Amino acid sequence: MHIDLLRSGSKPLPQQISDTLAQRITSGLLQPGFRLPSVRGLAATLKVSQVTVSKAYADLEKKGHLICSQGKGCFVAEHEQSGPGNGADWRDGYDDYLPRAQLWRNFGYSEVKYPFHLAAIHEELLPLGPISTTMAALVTGQPELMASYGNFQGDPELREIMRRHLQLRGIHLATSDLMITSGTQQGIDLVARTFVGPGDTVYLEAPSYTGAIDVFAGRGAEMIFVPMDHEGMRVDVLTRQCDARPPKLIYTNPTFQNPSGVTMSMARRQRLLELARSYRCLIVEDDPFSDLYFRTPPPSPIKSMDEDGHVVYMKSFSKVIAPGCRIACVAAEGNILSRLIAAKSASDLGSPLLTQGAVLPFIARRYEDYARTLRAALRRRMEKAARLLKQYAPPGVTWVLPEGGLNLWLQLPSASGIERLRELAEEEGISFLPGDVCYAGDLPSRFIRLCYSQMTEADMERGLKLFLILLDKHLRSLNQ
Amino acid sequence: MHIDLLRSGSKPLPQQISDTLAQRITSGLLQPGFRLPSVRGLAATLKVSQVTVSKAYADLEKKGHLICSQGKGCFVAEHEQSGPGNGADWRDGYDDYLPRAQLWRNFGYSEVKYPFHLAAIHEELLPLGPISTTMAALVTGQPELMASYGNFQGDPELREIMRRHLQLRGIHLATSDLMITSGTQQGIDLVARTFVGPGDTVYLEAPSYTGAIDVFAGRGAEMIFVPMDHEGMRVDVLTRQCDARPPKLIYTNPTFQNPSGVTMSMARRQRLLELARSYRCLIVEDDPFSDLYFRTPPPSPIKSMDEDGHVVYMKSFSKVIAPGCRIACVAAEGNILSRLIAAKSASDLGSPLLTQGAVLPFIARRYEDYARTLRAALRRRMEKAARLLKQYAPPGVTWVLPEGGLNLWLQLPSASGIERLRELAEEEGISFLPGDVCYAGDLPSRFIRLCYSQMTEADMERGLKLFLILLDKHLRSLNQ
Repeated sequence: MHIDLLRSGSKPLPQQISDTLAQRITSGLLQPGFRLPSVRGLAATLKVSQVTVSKAYADLEKKGHLICSQGKGCFVAEHEQSGPGNGADWRDGYDDYLPRAQLWRNFGYSEVKYPFHLAAIHEELLPLGPISTTMAALVTGQPELMASYGNFQGDPELREIMRRHLQLRGIHLATSDLMITSGTQQGIDLVARTFVGPGDTVYLEAPSYTGAIDVFAGRGAEMIFVPMDHEGMRVDVLTRQCDARPPKLIYTNPTFQNPSGVTMSMARRQRLLELARSYRCLIVEDDPFSDLYFRTPPPSPIKSMDEDGHVVYMKSFSKVIAPGCRIACVAAEGNILSRLIAAKSASDLGSPLLTQGAVLPFIARRYEDYARTLRAALRRRMEKAARLLKQYAPPGVTWVLPEGGLNLWLQLPSASGIERLRELAEEEGISFLPGDVCYAGDLPSRFIRLCYSQMTEADMERGLKLFLILLDKHLRSLNQ
Repeated sequence: MHIDLLRSGSKPLPQQISDTLAQRITSGLLQPGFRLPSVRGLAATLKVSQVTVSKAYADLEKKGHLICSQGKGCFVAEHEQSGPGNGADWRDGYDDYLPRAQLWRNFGYSEVKYPFHLAAIHEELLPLGPISTTMAALVTGQPELMASYGNFQGDPELREIMRRHLQLRGIHLATSDLMITSGTQQGIDLVARTFVGPGDTVYLEAPSYTGAIDVFAGRGAEMIFVPMDHEGMRVDVLTRQCDARPPKLIYTNPTFQNPSGVTMSMARRQRLLELARSYRCLIVEDDPFSDLYFRTPPPSPIKSMDEDGHVVYMKSFSKVIAPGCRIACVAAEGNILSRLIAAKSASDLGSPLLTQGAVLPFIARRYEDYARTLRAALRRRMEKAARLLKQYAPPGVTWVLPEGGLNLWLQLPSASGIERLRELAEEEGISFLPGDVCYAGDLPSRFIRLCYSQMTEADMERGLKLFLILLDKHLRSLNQ
C-alpha cells in the first residue's frame, strides 16, 4: 500500500496515514471487508515506526472506518452487513497510487430523475442543432478526419478561432500558445502530471473543484486550502501561507467559482498574479463560466494581465456548448506549453479531429449571440430557483445568489445528517453534491451544491421544490 | 529540476542523473542554450553529493550534450549556432516531471510525403464509409449524445459488443469487466498512473513501444528491457531478472510486436502468465495487431488463459478501423478495473459517447469480414515491400518479414549515421522511426522501423524505393 508521506509537512505522520486511508475508504476505493496490511508490514513499507501506523489504525477504528481484531487484523468496516471479507484475492494487496476518487464516486451515476449533482447545462439550452449539422457535413464530406490521429496540440484552425475568442476577452496570444484538450479536466490533469509531484505545495480555494482536488491528490501534492470571502480567495491569507510553504502552483476558479459562485475582485486578481511572479510559480486559472454572467460582465481574466507566462488559462467549451464533444482550450506560453503538449502526447496522442471540427464554425460565428441567449435563460432559471428557495427553504439554510454560472451553494445548519439526506433524496430521484468532496476531506462540510441548469426548467422547479420539502422534513427529524 | 533517483537501483547515481538529463536534451524538452542548475544547487535539490552531480555533468559534456564553462555554468549544447542562451526566463527553472517525450518528438510532424514513421493504416483501407454513415445518422437522430458526459467506464452497449468480440477470441469476460479508453495510449497511461510509481520495476521487451516507454518513464519507474528471440520475450531471462528485482508490472505486445514484428509463442505466453502469478503482479497485454495476420492466426491472447485477473488486456479499435475515433477497449477484473475507472474519471471524465456510438454497429456486424479483407490488403503491401527490399536494400541491411501487423524492422550495419539519414530522408519527404526511441535511450540502436500501410500502395512503393536508394547512398558515404 502506497501512501505519500510528507516528512517535513505540518501534519503529523499518523494523521497523514489515517487521512489518506479514510479518503480511500470513503470514496469506495477500499471496499468493505478489505484487509489492511499488518501494522508491521505497513510500517516497513512506509519506513515509519510501528507506533505511527498503530496510531493511524486506532484513529480510523475510532472513526468507524475500520474494524480491528486481535490476531485477525484490521478490515474496512462494512456499512450494512458485518464480518470481514476473506481478503484472499491477490489484487487486494496490489498497490496503487490513487489516494482519492471523489469524481468517480460522485459522478458515476446519472440515472436519477432530478440530477442536481452535476454542474452542466441541459440539452434543451445547448446549440446541438448547428453543431450536429456541422458534424454530419464533416463526416460525410471529410471522412478522412476519422482516419487521422489528431495533432497533439490540437487542430490549428480551431486554435486560431480560439485565439480570436480569447482576444475579445483581453487575452492576447498566438495560435501557437494554445492547446486543445479533452475537456478542462484533462487540462488540469496535464498540468498536474507535468508540474506537480509528491510534496509539492498546491494552493486552492476552500472549497474548490472536486476534479482538481482528485488530480492533485493523485500526484501526492500537499494541498493547502485558502479561505474565501465575498471577493474570492483571501490573497492576504495566501501570502502568509506562502511564506511558510512556497507554492509550486495555485489553482483558482476566479469567476462564479465552482462550487461557491463567488467572483474574485480585480484587486485580488492583480495581487494573486504578483504573488505568482514573486514566487516564480504557476497559476492555473480555470474559467468555465465567465461568459455566463447574469447582470454585468465579471472582471477580466487574470491571464489578460499576465506578461511573463505565469498563468495557464483554461477555458471549457464543453461545458457551455457541447459537453459530449469534450473540447477545452489551454493557453500558456513558452516551455510551459511545450511541456504540456509533450504530456498530452503521452496521455492520448491528441484529441479527435472530428469533434474539434464540429464545434469550430459555431465558436467562430455564433458563439457570442448564443452566449447572450444562454445567459438570459440561465438567469431566468436561477431566479426561479431563488423564488423556490425563498418560499420553501427551511429555517437555518442559507445561500448567496450567484451573479453567474450554474450552481447554488447552500449552507445547512449542520454537517451531520448530510449522508442520510443524500439517501433520502436518492429515493425520491434527486441527487446533489455533498460539499465535503470540494475539500480535501478532513472535515465534514455543511454545504451542498445544487445545479439549476441540468434539467428542463419544469423538472428543475419540481425537483427543487421536492428537495426543499424533503430537506425541511429531514432537518426537523434531526432536531427531534 | 526534478529527477527520480533510485538509491537502491543498480545504476550508479551519476549515471542516473546523466541518463535522465540526456533523454530530456535529446527529446528537446531541454532546449539548446538552457542553463542547467548549478552543481551545488542540483546536489541540494536531489540530496546527493556535489561530486555526484559533477560526474553527471562531466559525462554529459563528454557526450556533447552540455557546454560548461568556469564561472558561467553549464548550458545545453547548441546543435548549430553556439553561445549559451540568456537563461533569464523564470520558466527555465520551473521543475517538471517529464523525463522523456519521444512520442512528442517523433510523431509531432506528419507533413512529409512518405510518412513511414507512423504505424497506421491508410484511409483508403479503412472502413470510413460505414462509420461516417453511422456517425451522420447519430448526430442527426440523437444530437443529445453531444450534450452528455460519457459514462466513465464507456458506453454499456459498446462494451457489450466488445465483450462478444473478445469472446470470439477466447477471452470470456462480463461487460462490466471492460472499459473504453481514448486509444490504447490512454489505457497504458491509466495503468501506469494507477499502479506504477517511482522506483517500481516495469519489464518490457527490448525493443518496445515508444509510447509505453514514455509513460512508464514519466512515472519514475525503473524500466528493465528483456531481450527477445524469434519466440518473443525471453521469459527465461526475465525470470532470472525478476529474482533480483521483483516486477510491479510486465508490459508486453506479444503478437506481431511493435516494432519488431515478432510473435510470442504459446509456451512463452503460458510461462509469462505463471511468472505473473507467482510474483502477484500485472501483465499489460497490448494487442493492436492480432487480427492482422497474413497466413495463420497467432496464438490466443495471454488474457484467454488468465484465471485470476493478472492480465490487463488492451485492444485498439482505433488502429484498425478509425484512428480518429480514438476507441480502445481495456479488459481487467475486480478492483484492478475499478481503480482504472477511477483514474479515467480524473483524467478526462470519460470518452465522448458519439465516437463510441459511431464505431458500434461496425464492430458488431461488419468487423470480421472487414478484417479478412484488410489482412489480404496488408499482406499484399508487405509482399510488395518485401520485393523492393530484396531488390534495393543495400548490403548489410537485414530484416525478418513479419507474419502480421504493419511494420518492417530493419537492421542497419551500424547505429552511426542514423540521425544524418533521417535528415537526408526528410529532405526527400520521407520519414522513418529511429529504433533508439524503442529503448530507454541509453544506447544508440542500429534498427529503424518502417510502416508499409500508412500511404497509398503506389506511394508506399515509390517512397520505399526512394528510401532504399537513399539508404544505399548514405551507407556508401559512411564507408568512404
